[in-house]
Amino acid sequence: MSLVDATVARIRPVDLAARAAAVERLDRMTKPAGSLGRVEDLAVTLAGIAGACPPPLPVPATVAVFAGDHGVHAQGVTPWPQEVTAQMVANFLAGGAVVNAFARSLGKELCTDVVVVDVGVAAPLAGADGLINRKVMAGTADMTTGPAMTREQAEAAVVAGITTADELVAAGSRCLVPGDMGIANTTAAAALIGVFTGATAEEATGRGTGIDDATLERKVGVVAAALARNTPDASDPLGVLAAVGGLEHAAIAGFVLGAAAHRVPVVLDGVNVGAAALVAVAMAPDVVGYCVAGHRSVEPGHSLALAHLGLTPLLDLGMRLGEGTGGLLAVPVVHAAARALQDVATFDAAGVTEKV
Amino acid sequence: MSLVDATVARIRPVDLAARAAAVERLDRMTKPAGSLGRVEDLAVTLAGIAGACPPPLPVPATVAVFAGDHGVHAQGVTPWPQEVTAQMVANFLAGGAVVNAFARSLGKELCTDVVVVDVGVAAPLAGADGLINRKVMAGTADMTTGPAMTREQAEAAVVAGITTADELVAAGSRCLVPGDMGIANTTAAAALIGVFTGATAEEATGRGTGIDDATLERKVGVVAAALARNTPDASDPLGVLAAVGGLEHAAIAGFVLGAAAHRVPVVLDGVNVGAAALVAVAMAPDVVGYCVAGHRSVEPGHSLALAHLGLTPLLDLGMRLGEGTGGLLAVPVVHAAARALQDVATFDAAGVTEKV
Repeated sequence: MSLVDATVARIRPVDLAARAAAVERLDRMTKPAGSLGRVEDLAVTLAGIAGACPPPLPVPATVAVFAGDHGVHAQGVTPWPQEVTAQMVANFLAGGAVVNAFARSLGKELCTDVVVVDVGVAAPLAGADGLINRKVMAGTADMTTGPAMTREQAEAAVVAGITTADELVAAGSRCLVPGDMGIANTTAAAALIGVFTGATAEEATGRGTGIDDATLERKVGVVAAALARNTPDASDPLGVLAAVGGLEHAAIAGFVLGAAAHRVPVVLDGVNVGAAALVAVAMAPDVVGYCVAGHRSVEPGHSLALAHLGLTPLLDLGMRLGEGTGGLLAVPVVHAAARALQDVATFDAAGVTEKV
Repeated sequence: MSLVDATVARIRPVDLAARAAAVERLDRMTKPAGSLGRVEDLAVTLAGIAGACPPPLPVPATVAVFAGDHGVHAQGVTPWPQEVTAQMVANFLAGGAVVNAFARSLGKELCTDVVVVDVGVAAPLAGADGLINRKVMAGTADMTTGPAMTREQAEAAVVAGITTADELVAAGSRCLVPGDMGIANTTAAAALIGVFTGATAEEATGRGTGIDDATLERKVGVVAAALARNTPDASDPLGVLAAVGGLEHAAIAGFVLGAAAHRVPVVLDGVNVGAAALVAVAMAPDVVGYCVAGHRSVEPGHSLALAHLGLTPLLDLGMRLGEGTGGLLAVPVVHAAARALQDVATFDAAGVTEKV
């Protein structure tokens, strides 16, 4: 059995008994019933994921940024040169990007270092501390002229993501935060979202880094052309990835599968991670129970993906950067929810009188 | 000059040059322009507060929970007995409440211990580590039959809050998070919000801990009666506090004034802190520039207060607990914003190509 099949086979539904125990405990805690709102829902989710109430603390989290390039870049979907993918990888490794600043801001107890995984950067990258070389190919092919990659390449990228999750959990991570880097990758994300949600190219495509009207119009046309050229079938997620996905989307899908197989929460970021989560959930529907939506990106396709997954994001701050930044900002809320369930005294234990 | 007047006199407008420098730096950072959304606005706010770009990191934060009782409790506005205020103070001091769990969840780098300030708990409290005794009186009088307190008592409670802010900043806190505890205090908060926003008792009054329809109807009537009995004048904030405020509202107003005087950000919590912030801003309009709205409570009066202050909250998680819990959950976002402004490389420095 392949690693992908074996991982999918290990994924179980979340634990309903642990969820029920969390609901019951939340009602005995020294606070008005329901007064923590969605943080209570989150606490219940974490109990269900871990299969224990209270759940173990979901820290430290690790953010893994999966990087890849896109053949569709040639279609003029973005004003950013393709070389920026490799340059930003160097920036991550030097600690100078927003994802590094955000990870650092959480402190070591909540978040370990940023890990960067090269699954498909076009340029060759020199080895460096914090860089994991799992390059499947030097960028995808142009999906408007044929599939972005072969089925085998897509599977290899999924395996890269699963392996990364396996290694991070083995090293002690208790919460996984996927991030993405890849110039032109919101074009592939829009195509993936179109396939899985049924949205049109126009509905699923957004401005990404902030493109102008003319570029947006071209980008919508490119997404539509890629879908028309490849006619991907949503019931064959690996085939969809091969047709219109990116190597980083495939790897993130594997990373999400890996988290679910380990019963570790995965905090989703924006539109690229959301598109990859659609793939993972298509492969193994129980995966959605292990996903926490960290934030809502302003990309319209991201809201379509969240709605399809039935997830409500914790944060809505108008962000659209990727790199895992939106997922990282939600990690303290995830930690606080678990901490509350673990630490807060009950009315009985604290000697606090309940309402009459 | 009184401490209140001296503190108000020290409050300056936020620094426009530092704000402009932050806007300029954000546009040179290695990310698409504007892609951090409201986190960029927050970074600019922090630069303006500190008068420096990048601003110093706004950590550690300290949460100070101000506790007081309310004579209006006798009017049947809540099913919780008054003794719960003192019991919850004991719970805070034992580390068993949600505010303790949330503070702990942030880690020592982001948040020091929870401080509890007794400004007006009805029951006598035994001394304990973490408890500051600044009791002005053993709970307010019933505001439906006369003023809740004298002007001198209101001023003494404001001074208690200023002094607490002074001490915490002197001890190294770089971000202040006010919290409240006081059974029946959302009734006083509704009255304060009615005065400063012009809302009716019906608009400003909510379900607090989650009261039923009959109790809500009674509570609205009580708020209306208190306003009719005292006819508070919004242009005399201390008089408003004396008429319909709580001792903890007065202290929190002083705490917010103190934060602004020290050019330290204050992260606001829910409806009780919001009501107190209205008082502080009425005393010194520049104070609003030092306020970060941590979250939106489900209490309708809180949204009225935020709208009046022109603040958009960072989080909206359906919470309604108080204690400073909603403010605390926003501290990591505040820290991340400052960290990004301080740490993220510029395009030039990182050798990343800009878009064409």
